[in-house]
Amino acid sequence: MSQYWSDIVHTLTPYVPGEQPKITNLIKLNTNECPYGPSPKAIEAIKAASNDDLRLYPDPNGDALKDALAKRFQLERNQVFVGNGSDEILAHTFIGLLKRDKPLLFPDITYSFYPVYCRLYDVNFNQVPLNDHFEIDIESYQQPCGGVIIPNPNAPTGALLPLDKIEQLAQQHADVPVVIDEAYIDFGGASAASLINRFPNLLVIQTFSKSRSLAGLRVGFALGNADLIAGLERVKNSFNSYPLDRLALAGSVASVEDEEYFDDCCRRVIATRTQLVAALDNLGFSTLPSAANFVFTQHPDNNAASLAEQLRARNIIVRHFKQGRIDNFLRISIGSEAEITALIEALTNILKK
Amino acid sequence: MSQYWSDIVHTLTPYVPGEQPKITNLIKLNTNECPYGPSPKAIEAIKAASNDDLRLYPDPNGDALKDALAKRFQLERNQVFVGNGSDEILAHTFIGLLKRDKPLLFPDITYSFYPVYCRLYDVNFNQVPLNDHFEIDIESYQQPCGGVIIPNPNAPTGALLPLDKIEQLAQQHADVPVVIDEAYIDFGGASAASLINRFPNLLVIQTFSKSRSLAGLRVGFALGNADLIAGLERVKNSFNSYPLDRLALAGSVASVEDEEYFDDCCRRVIATRTQLVAALDNLGFSTLPSAANFVFTQHPDNNAASLAEQLRARNIIVRHFKQGRIDNFLRISIGSEAEITALIEALTNILKK
Repeated sequence: MSQYWSDIVHTLTPYVPGEQPKITNLIKLNTNECPYGPSPKAIEAIKAASNDDLRLYPDPNGDALKDALAKRFQLERNQVFVGNGSDEILAHTFIGLLKRDKPLLFPDITYSFYPVYCRLYDVNFNQVPLNDHFEIDIESYQQPCGGVIIPNPNAPTGALLPLDKIEQLAQQHADVPVVIDEAYIDFGGASAASLINRFPNLLVIQTFSKSRSLAGLRVGFALGNADLIAGLERVKNSFNSYPLDRLALAGSVASVEDEEYFDDCCRRVIATRTQLVAALDNLGFSTLPSAANFVFTQHPDNNAASLAEQLRARNIIVRHFKQGRIDNFLRISIGSEAEITALIEALTNILKK
Repeated sequence: MSQYWSDIVHTLTPYVPGEQPKITNLIKLNTNECPYGPSPKAIEAIKAASNDDLRLYPDPNGDALKDALAKRFQLERNQVFVGNGSDEILAHTFIGLLKRDKPLLFPDITYSFYPVYCRLYDVNFNQVPLNDHFEIDIESYQQPCGGVIIPNPNAPTGALLPLDKIEQLAQQHADVPVVIDEAYIDFGGASAASLINRFPNLLVIQTFSKSRSLAGLRVGFALGNADLIAGLERVKNSFNSYPLDRLALAGSVASVEDEEYFDDCCRRVIATRTQLVAALDNLGFSTLPSAANFVFTQHPDNNAASLAEQLRARNIIVRHFKQGRIDNFLRISIGSEAEITALIEALTNILKK
């Protein structure tokens, strides 16, 4: 508390990201990072860009990255927005598109940064409960609102909405922005990017932090109608002209261009997820169907907080959310096969006790 | 214009950064970049960090960079804030510290991003005229206000306020935040960082984009009382948990640790500035005294816009601001000796005509 803070600062409840421990030799299954490194071509491109040109500002518009993404998604450059991770893009979206008279709708159990943005920018919101299966029921979104934002797949549940439901949602709310936060879409879902030319109110946000193994580079992007993107550009250019550094631009362009590596990486994560779910089943866990690079699971006889703590004692970190309805679940990121084997071994020993 | 924009977006007048041309072989004296590359140790550190660990999120707090800066400025870690360029830090400062009931004060001629932030965050402001010598007169800031922000040296004039004036300003406004934006301080001024432990209302903002030759890496920092910094952290953690990527952290830490390279770089820029001012004098220009890595200059018989245009035709870019009081000035960044020689040659030829 300080007399020098603006009023709004006193009301904030900042987001708490998953732990980023500085000690090594941990099995880190708590922040949904990819167990495999980025495309070697991305690393090569970054090294090539590590030169005296770093004295110069980057392209403020990130056109090379916009062009690479436009090509991949069969869109135009002016339908692509890029930013310093999808979190920054979400922030710009909350102030630039979702701050309206009527309340913004999002699930009661979802990415916990959404209400944080709402408090920062004084955005009116209503949280819509997931159904009893922890799924988003789009019928429950049929209410007057200023906009809708949902992650697909949802976090931390991993549940996927099929594309026809997204289409229905965009149609039902044609007069307000509908934002689909697709951080995890590459692990088993179909992107709503294909609907953009049909729905001028639809914004799709993705990240390089998960399926592209570049959480450490901070790159995200949004796809949408040119008018929506122009709104985000106006906010961005009133905030920071150069959100993406030269290395992030070089690395992300090379990553987009290496489709083979990307596809292979997603396939491997999905295969390990299948193995993990089966092993958890064997141990008596009940796991929600996941289309993401994590699973959300609970055990009938074991308290989740205690399990997380016992895993931590064995140098394995998973994520536990102290929140009503889900406080008996663990969110476990899909690690490498070796990491998942170690996790299952640890859980087996813990449950034996 | 779009029905999907929030109301605020319609009112914005985004900042327009200096041109970042994509063609090469230009002499680029328009955005105050350093003519010399960054410390070789920074480039080495970036290359070393270009590895599979990019799959992992960076340290959300950037502690390694905070520690390096704290050591350099003889402060504590909790007196240091880091961000994605000083522009991002300024944005957080406007919403987090400078949005108050009474108006924020800043010069009428100054960094043109300040009124842009005010519009984005609905911050009430008063622009205080520079005196007839285009200097900040701190007497004119003796009025009720919610805060003060000034660049020192000021931009685009290059004029420096000595430290005792900054001290007076911080004292006169002890009940509100006083922010000193020191993007150019290393080229001839004394930093107000030395006053921080005496003035809890004083925030000093610096950047790696100028004197550290890392405009392409996007790193800035703020120094201040722990309470001020805590306010900025609350905003940052309500906006984007991970503003600095792994490469930016690695490169900026190595840059701070290479004091010798940094000192040498600043010395070279200052020496070239002296040469440039003398050569401009010879051509009949009248140049404001500059403590920055640029000069602000006008010619009695030649229109600035036309001079800028004629230089552009000779592949030399300088900056001209279409703004009352200063529309006959050119802002010229201090390039390398060879670039400045070419500039003077071009100006000599233009004036001959």
